[in-house]
Amino acid sequence: MTSSPQINAQRLLQRIADFASIGATQAGGVNRQALSVEDRAARRLLAELAFARGFNVYQDAIANLFISRAGRDPSLPPVLIGSHLDSQPTGGRFDGALGTLSAFEVLEALQDAGVVTERSVEMVSWTNEEGSRFSPGCMGSMAFVGVGDIAGWRDTRGTDGTRLGDELAATLKALPEAKMQPVGHAVSSFVEVHIEQGPVLERAGIPIGLVTSVQGTRWLEVSFIGEAAHAGTTPLEFRKDPMAAAVAAIAQLQLVVMPADPMARLTVGRMSVEPSSVNVIPSKVTFTIDIRHPSKELLSSIEARIDAECRTSAKRHMVDVLIEKRFDLAPGKFDTTVVDVIDSACERLCVPNMKIVSGAFHDALFVSRVAPTAMIFVPCRDGISHNEAEFVTSENIETGAKVLLETALSLARGAMTSYFPSARRPRHLPMSKRAVRKARS
Amino acid sequence: MTSSPQINAQRLLQRIADFASIGATQAGGVNRQALSVEDRAARRLLAELAFARGFNVYQDAIANLFISRAGRDPSLPPVLIGSHLDSQPTGGRFDGALGTLSAFEVLEALQDAGVVTERSVEMVSWTNEEGSRFSPGCMGSMAFVGVGDIAGWRDTRGTDGTRLGDELAATLKALPEAKMQPVGHAVSSFVEVHIEQGPVLERAGIPIGLVTSVQGTRWLEVSFIGEAAHAGTTPLEFRKDPMAAAVAAIAQLQLVVMPADPMARLTVGRMSVEPSSVNVIPSKVTFTIDIRHPSKELLSSIEARIDAECRTSAKRHMVDVLIEKRFDLAPGKFDTTVVDVIDSACERLCVPNMKIVSGAFHDALFVSRVAPTAMIFVPCRDGISHNEAEFVTSENIETGAKVLLETALSLARGAMTSYFPSARRPRHLPMSKRAVRKARS
Repeated sequence: MTSSPQINAQRLLQRIADFASIGATQAGGVNRQALSVEDRAARRLLAELAFARGFNVYQDAIANLFISRAGRDPSLPPVLIGSHLDSQPTGGRFDGALGTLSAFEVLEALQDAGVVTERSVEMVSWTNEEGSRFSPGCMGSMAFVGVGDIAGWRDTRGTDGTRLGDELAATLKALPEAKMQPVGHAVSSFVEVHIEQGPVLERAGIPIGLVTSVQGTRWLEVSFIGEAAHAGTTPLEFRKDPMAAAVAAIAQLQLVVMPADPMARLTVGRMSVEPSSVNVIPSKVTFTIDIRHPSKELLSSIEARIDAECRTSAKRHMVDVLIEKRFDLAPGKFDTTVVDVIDSACERLCVPNMKIVSGAFHDALFVSRVAPTAMIFVPCRDGISHNEAEFVTSENIETGAKVLLETALSLARGAMTSYFPSARRPRHLPMSKRAVRKARS
Repeated sequence: MTSSPQINAQRLLQRIADFASIGATQAGGVNRQALSVEDRAARRLLAELAFARGFNVYQDAIANLFISRAGRDPSLPPVLIGSHLDSQPTGGRFDGALGTLSAFEVLEALQDAGVVTERSVEMVSWTNEEGSRFSPGCMGSMAFVGVGDIAGWRDTRGTDGTRLGDELAATLKALPEAKMQPVGHAVSSFVEVHIEQGPVLERAGIPIGLVTSVQGTRWLEVSFIGEAAHAGTTPLEFRKDPMAAAVAAIAQLQLVVMPADPMARLTVGRMSVEPSSVNVIPSKVTFTIDIRHPSKELLSSIEARIDAECRTSAKRHMVDVLIEKRFDLAPGKFDTTVVDVIDSACERLCVPNMKIVSGAFHDALFVSRVAPTAMIFVPCRDGISHNEAEFVTSENIETGAKVLLETALSLARGAMTSYFPSARRPRHLPMSKRAVRKARS
């Protein structure tokens, strides 16, 4: 006997509270950094819940943890849903955990209702999304899509001095019941629920964001190099003041970049001054610029504008300037079909929603390279995240899970053809016979 | 038999080299901080040279070291010349030492020539001008003029953890041959030779600066307080970015303050950012502003302008602002008669010179409160000071000493009436009978 599957909101809220107790901080947040003892405890709890349900639990060499509920046709690549369980050192209880536990709730709801989906529905908890203990973040999803370097990462040292290879081995060993499988397997689609980490949905009073794309991000480090001199004895015309040059350039960029383009983001988050003395004109001022835009071309034009403004200011202030690119992540576009599926799910559930661009990057951005992918955002209070004060209302948690369930049901119907054409498959992954068959069909 | 006194340039250069070897640093600079073992060694060497000449050597409770060459009329307050022997931790060999050793050279030149001056000519090495080990600087000259608090300073801890009282006692004890005398005595005038510590003289190609005044200095600490938020997920209209507010305010101040007034100085030498993360809009940006001007009124109007620009910027960027005054030193004006005496000395020696305002403060600024005072600046290379790379040419050293000798000869002639009227005498100093006699005459 089957019934219509229903999200059990009380169960989901309880699960979120249970996982928040693993690595709980005094201030109500979570410190459950990747591959730590706390991370292992959370993985164990999730696996135990899955075993109790009779789901299939397996992990791969980078410790991505998969839980699969079998569908009718094992030859079809599964629908993948999920997020991550690791946190920032003073993180919140929703970043990652919300999407992971909502995905598990979907599996439980399907099981409770005895629904047989055409495709298997599989959930994942990606390893080390945050990157705060071991850099870079999104290791699990990067490895999954074939752009990661697991061998190279093994010698990475954590902020606590530990070696990633050792912590990874210990994490895998702590869950011996989970079957090992090769890194990367065919999936028909991927959907990740996540908190917005920004203020847009909350201020618009809309509970669901359909994430159409992820902004590209570039990090620049700008150094203005002048000449240290006495603050009192050096007249204006003799100054080579890198601080004057820096503030003029940044102030001008603040005036022209964001006001001209509501999709653009420009942030100066760090600045260091040498020699840093109240009565000495600085010799050097170095600062970072974080720029984001959904369009790669416009990102490049912002970068060119930064270059031009900095050079103009340097010339005017008779100082040198050096601009270095420290990070460059191309914008990502999510699959319009998957976005439409989520949109239809919202429509059926009568849930108000809006299209939104993600300003943060997520595992879904990497997974989108190999499978049709989209994200579902729920509002978080005041847009606060990466912070122990992170908060999501019970209503929004429930709505997010309901939309994920409805979406997963649609995607698992098997109506969509495989979204895993051989052309997009990462080269290092041997193609399964199943995937080859689908690609040829 | 007397002859015309002559500066012995070779001897003076050798003395400067000898003193530079006390606390010499690898990079050719000097680390001879106030009341340190090195400072004591330099004081001993100077005292030995004085004893060998038969000069009168004495010190006071704050360890100001005086060397007096007696004049014809012991009832006249002496002409005082000199500077300081202490240095910054990575200081140069000329800051302080040049003026101190030039003063000693004047005494030796007078002695060599057998000149009998009307007034005694006395030199001084003031204690702790730099203030880098024990704060505040100019302790010796402040105590001399009665604005210092020797008792309070005794418990001051140095950057090395030592107690000033202990180091002061050890310094005085290390020179038992020097007679002790009360702090503060009547002097007819004071002249200090010092490196300019700025680029004006060198770039003008002029060897002597007649210092007419010292700029007033105020130090402000400005904090803009906004709201930390994600660099990627926070649109412009939701930002409360203290960095945007800070750079707009500073850039505007750079455009309006110094360009409008060639005497004004405005320097932002320090900035700290919280939480200082490349992808986080800062919650707080704090920076210092050092402002200088020879006019107290214009200094106040610059301060008011800073206040206004910061508040305007804070309002526009929806952040809070806090402005605190950390230091306030009123401008000082040197005595026009003493400046004229130096000017005439230059004229007789055919030395090109220009009037100049000191951007740095010096012991002379304090001494000017109780006696007619002025300073003689010599150029230093590239205006560099408080730096091991500090450099002065031999020609300029010689020229400075010659002008000081010629000036001291004029001032010691006794033609000037006492510049120590009782009205200007600090109250806590008991008036000597001699001073009372002069004040009544």
